[in-house]
Amino acid sequence: MTIRTVGIVTKPHQPDVARVAAELADWFRERRVRTLMEADAARLTGQPGLGATAGTLAADSDLVVVLGGDGTLLSAARLLDGRDVPVLGINHGGLGFLTAVPLEELYGDLARVLAGEYSSESRMMLDASIVRAGESVARHQALNDVVINKGTPARIIEVEARVDGRYVSTFRADGLIISTPTGSTAYNMSAGGPIVHPDLDAILLTPICSHTLTNRPIVLPANVGVVVTHRSPDDESVFATVDGQVGVGMKNSDALYVRMSERRLRLIAPVGKSYFDVLRGKLKWG
Amino acid sequence: MTIRTVGIVTKPHQPDVARVAAELADWFRERRVRTLMEADAARLTGQPGLGATAGTLAADSDLVVVLGGDGTLLSAARLLDGRDVPVLGINHGGLGFLTAVPLEELYGDLARVLAGEYSSESRMMLDASIVRAGESVARHQALNDVVINKGTPARIIEVEARVDGRYVSTFRADGLIISTPTGSTAYNMSAGGPIVHPDLDAILLTPICSHTLTNRPIVLPANVGVVVTHRSPDDESVFATVDGQVGVGMKNSDALYVRMSERRLRLIAPVGKSYFDVLRGKLKWG
Amino acid sequence: MTIRTVGIVTKPHQPDVARVAAELADWFRERRVRTLMEADAARLTGQPGLGATAGTLAADSDLVVVLGGDGTLLSAARLLDGRDVPVLGINHGGLGFLTAVPLEELYGDLARVLAGEYSSESRMMLDASIVRAGESVARHQALNDVVINKGTPARIIEVEARVDGRYVSTFRADGLIISTPTGSTAYNMSAGGPIVHPDLDAILLTPICSHTLTNRPIVLPANVGVVVTHRSPDDESVFATVDGQVGVGMKNSDALYVRMSERRLRLIAPVGKSYFDVLRGKLKWG
Amino acid sequence: MTIRTVGIVTKPHQPDVARVAAELADWFRERRVRTLMEADAARLTGQPGLGATAGTLAADSDLVVVLGGDGTLLSAARLLDGRDVPVLGINHGGLGFLTAVPLEELYGDLARVLAGEYSSESRMMLDASIVRAGESVARHQALNDVVINKGTPARIIEVEARVDGRYVSTFRADGLIISTPTGSTAYNMSAGGPIVHPDLDAILLTPICSHTLTNRPIVLPANVGVVVTHRSPDDESVFATVDGQVGVGMKNSDALYVRMSERRLRLIAPVGKSYFDVLRGKLKWG
Repeated sequence: MTIRTVGIVTKPHQPDVARVAAELADWFRERRVRTLMEADAARLTGQPGLGATAGTLAADSDLVVVLGGDGTLLSAARLLDGRDVPVLGINHGGLGFLTAVPLEELYGDLARVLAGEYSSESRMMLDASIVRAGESVARHQALNDVVINKGTPARIIEVEARVDGRYVSTFRADGLIISTPTGSTAYNMSAGGPIVHPDLDAILLTPICSHTLTNRPIVLPANVGVVVTHRSPDDESVFATVDGQVGVGMKNSDALYVRMSERRLRLIAPVGKSYFDVLRGKLKWG
Repeated sequence: MTIRTVGIVTKPHQPDVARVAAELADWFRERRVRTLMEADAARLTGQPGLGATAGTLAADSDLVVVLGGDGTLLSAARLLDGRDVPVLGINHGGLGFLTAVPLEELYGDLARVLAGEYSSESRMMLDASIVRAGESVARHQALNDVVINKGTPARIIEVEARVDGRYVSTFRADGLIISTPTGSTAYNMSAGGPIVHPDLDAILLTPICSHTLTNRPIVLPANVGVVVTHRSPDDESVFATVDGQVGVGMKNSDALYVRMSERRLRLIAPVGKSYFDVLRGKLKWG
Repeated sequence: MTIRTVGIVTKPHQPDVARVAAELADWFRERRVRTLMEADAARLTGQPGLGATAGTLAADSDLVVVLGGDGTLLSAARLLDGRDVPVLGINHGGLGFLTAVPLEELYGDLARVLAGEYSSESRMMLDASIVRAGESVARHQALNDVVINKGTPARIIEVEARVDGRYVSTFRADGLIISTPTGSTAYNMSAGGPIVHPDLDAILLTPICSHTLTNRPIVLPANVGVVVTHRSPDDESVFATVDGQVGVGMKNSDALYVRMSERRLRLIAPVGKSYFDVLRGKLKWG
Repeated sequence: MTIRTVGIVTKPHQPDVARVAAELADWFRERRVRTLMEADAARLTGQPGLGATAGTLAADSDLVVVLGGDGTLLSAARLLDGRDVPVLGINHGGLGFLTAVPLEELYGDLARVLAGEYSSESRMMLDASIVRAGESVARHQALNDVVINKGTPARIIEVEARVDGRYVSTFRADGLIISTPTGSTAYNMSAGGPIVHPDLDAILLTPICSHTLTNRPIVLPANVGVVVTHRSPDDESVFATVDGQVGVGMKNSDALYVRMSERRLRLIAPVGKSYFDVLRGKLKWG
């Protein structure tokens, strides 16, 4: 497919990000590729004419280039909301498992991508709903994870998990991470969870600092339904957080329903770079 | 399917195992179910008339009852060699994730199984070959795991893993575990690996005491091919061990090929007992 | 030393704790030992006559009996504020590493203690100060730990630690635990830290869910000074929590100073019960 | 103290190590410092005239320079056998927590050391004895660790530990590490143990891949006596290994006694380099 329109997603509050974003827009202009940015980003980059609504950017782009860290890519995934558009992540600062292209290889890799030389991975996402009195009061898609967390620093919480209606355990912990394979190298890994290859669809349950030492991370088939409830003395002392960005306070009687989303993200990489190459680089193996 | 013949697999060297095995044979006799045991076990149980070759036991049994620990069940899996026979594990000593029926529920559960009231899980297995100069010199099926291990207590080994031809990492470690989901609660868990639900087909790579702290357990799709080689100064100082029972010395230039086996094990459980119930009991959650 | 006055520290909001506390007071009365409780507890136990101020209880008691979980014992330690009074912990619910006497052995053990048959351990404590613009704005003693924690569920924090003026590391993590050996079996253990025998004076630094996987728990000599600062965009988004009970919001420029306290807690146990006996029981070893 | 004689300990089997060792000898010769090497090393370095017995090297040297990895430094510690000689480790390959001086800073750092500008740490060592029928049949000093390990790759071992006569636990594991603070960053860390600052005298007990997940690393006061026995069906299937270099087969009835040694190692470092600087560099923090 010919790439006629490129959406650039970035958070150009730092001057050097704005500079690279502006260069990037110039580079596409020279190649007669139409470029879109969200209005704010366009203004900060000094290219207000490229400004578009999030909806237009998502609908019109044949390729989305994300410039920033994994956080920026996570927000791009939310913006695309399941549209089947290839997404390329350019790493600008941070660890960046999702933004695998380093800045110094930017234009070589982009040229290859425009020429169609890239591999493509369809990453599974999670569909998370907070259910209150039988009704969904909040619903979000997650590329990385949904985290049940305590709101008050000092307090342990009790979180009960069920899988397809079967009782798993009541975790006395700082919280519980429900993660995709994509999210396995994010918060999940800091909490002691395994790396799960993104070609494998699966759902991870990883307790955070579990009081019970034998409560280990569990990897589940992707087609299960996970329901998490909590016992907390107060309303709003427990939060569900989606991809580390969107937080929802949970009332005492709320339940969190998580299952595989029907939406996926199409993440692309220059040909020849494997998932393991990224792991080795980011985790400084060897 | 009516169960006419039951194979009992047990290692009755302790008197109390022999006693239970003899009672078990009596119980089946009263119900006019033919019973087979391996010759050795039949003799130790005082029922030499039930003795049969391993081949006959595997071929003729409509149900295999394993009495012992997980080790005994692993040897039953090898004996069945992929035949699609339901296997019921009765726990006699040990931790027993696979032998989920406790001794005190033995006869109630057996009656339900004979009445067809059981759930059945098809557990994936691994097919492991040692390749030397282009030829397979040893080949085994594993229900739990294949482990590359140092032979000399004091020495770290260097193990290189490739997945579908792509370089993963060179592990400087005590060894490397390649595990099924079934094996995830065995050696893998002691080495820091996650619990993987057996309904999910997957292959786990878990380094043992890795020198590089960022070398974390990796969960892979089940359809990959894993090739492991090692750099060791001496021949035979590195071993591949299958299900903790069969060991093969690896020469310096040998490679270990592991993939999902075409054989599987049909493990059955009384209706109403979930995988999570077993986990909670064995790991003393809550 | 003859025990003439016993202080009972308990939180008798559950009826069965109140019942045991009342029995305990009767038991001492029969033995002509004067008993004191905090006013609130005395009222809830139906023995308002035993009520005393915290100060009187701390000053007059020859023995303090704590009835409850480790949380209750931690608050007793704060109440005693370094006074050299023997403290006996009776476990009523919860895990209870500090409240080692099980309820069913209560009166036998108490009789032995009144007869002087007990062993005594002097547990080190931490002295923690929040320093703002060169002045200490809050100061607390901790028996278990001082924890720097994020206030907002979703956000990682950056915490810089120095030991005796030397830079250790900047932890990008959920938080940082500074623990005593006594606290090593509390939050520290959930976060992956080691068990440290309380006969060894030491200070533990354990990051919580560190982003950098090689940031492992560190055990330091007890005579060092630890200074922790944080880089956080907002004031009051980071909290220091003492023994899981007292929380202090930290401004951006605040520093947390922690060193070994001059105060200690004298924890006693019936003769014959070792620290390892408690570990084995609580952690279900073997 | 003026340094008149320097012992160089190295394993110059690789040509580049031999080359650096020869340069080093020249450098000292120019400064009129007498240099000694073990006979083998002297020959491989092309300077046979510097050859001396291990005993002479240990007795005559005012400074010992170790060129290699931590393994070489461990063998130097054994060679010195408790003599109070300053030891400087030059890292040539490997991770090198003990050989903290990088090759490129070699001569600058050496000049400072000859001028007396260095800090000195007295590192505790372990004294380990295998006791058979009441008699010590082998006795070794360890700078890093003493490890009880299985000899057969496939088999778990049962190791019972007692501390000052008190029963700790029976570890069902691959083995048990008894480590010094110096050894805490070696095998202990790979097995999940904490970093212990070498200014703190302590003994660590860290199980290797424990079957029981709650068997966590334990840090003990340095003045305790540790006794380890094992239950193994066969003689010589269990080994005690000292500093990863000296292995002793243990019979079934043997006991391993470990306590703090009366010998210590004086490890020196150029002024201005803290223990934490080494940790940060070696563990790639930040």
